[in-house]
Amino acid sequence: MDTAERAAVLFANDAFYVAFQTGDAEAMEDLWSTDALVTCVHPGWQHLKGRDVVMEAWHSILGNPPDAPLRMEGASASVYGDTAVVICYEILGNINLVATNIFVRENNTWKIVHHQAGQSPPAPADDDPEPPETMQ
Amino acid sequence: MDTAERAAVLFANDAFYVAFQTGDAEAMEDLWSTDALVTCVHPGWQHLKGRDVVMEAWHSILGNPPDAPLRMEGASASVYGDTAVVICYEILGNINLVATNIFVRENNTWKIVHHQAGQSPPAPADDDPEPPETMQ
Repeated sequence: MDTAERAAVLFANDAFYVAFQTGDAEAMEDLWSTDALVTCVHPGWQHLKGRDVVMEAWHSILGNPPDAPLRMEGASASVYGDTAVVICYEILGNINLVATNIFVRENNTWKIVHHQAGQSPPAPADDDPEPPETMQ
Repeated sequence: MDTAERAAVLFANDAFYVAFQTGDAEAMEDLWSTDALVTCVHPGWQHLKGRDVVMEAWHSILGNPPDAPLRMEGASASVYGDTAVVICYEILGNINLVATNIFVRENNTWKIVHHQAGQSPPAPADDDPEPPETMQ
């Protein structure tokens, strides 16, 4: 059960990065909670609070894609009842970031309520990300 | 109810920074969850996972206090059932950090399960932190 829960959260986390990578603002909007308060901390920014403000920033970011492709790796999920936390690494050219992504269960779907990314060393090689087959 | 909940979370968040500021490792240990998986991302570090690893790092950090005193400001709490998220700013000399602190309810007490801090601009002057009197 816990493995299935974590896999579902990691699936939502993957969807977040696919939307990020492909600049899909509509998908990004759909991935964030509409019922709960959402907040976001982009690297080097003050925090953003409230869905309108957070979405406005995403539209701006997704409308100005970086030169280097974004990759995500080393995702690890923890589920605390109806809330879940994913820690993962973002690689953008030679910039390494580590992110905390928080999800809440909303109509049986995991929706994002908070994202913080900040500069970090590269992802540890010996981390224990959940294997892809946990979705099966 | 929600205001009282958020005040209780902010009280736990304050206690975290008091332990941090005073180098009180025993208080720090008591503030983190013993039942749930805990994780931590210090600025410029890879993430830490598991209570033993996270506590070992805190003992090291608290045993080597920085020259400048640490201040915390602009704390804002969101409660999602039995989980809560605090965003706040940490000021260490001329270094500004923004932190995401995640709490879970454990035996009717809010315990920390995750902390991430990363460099940021200073806290916004026009933020809306909960006033101290919300504890009354």
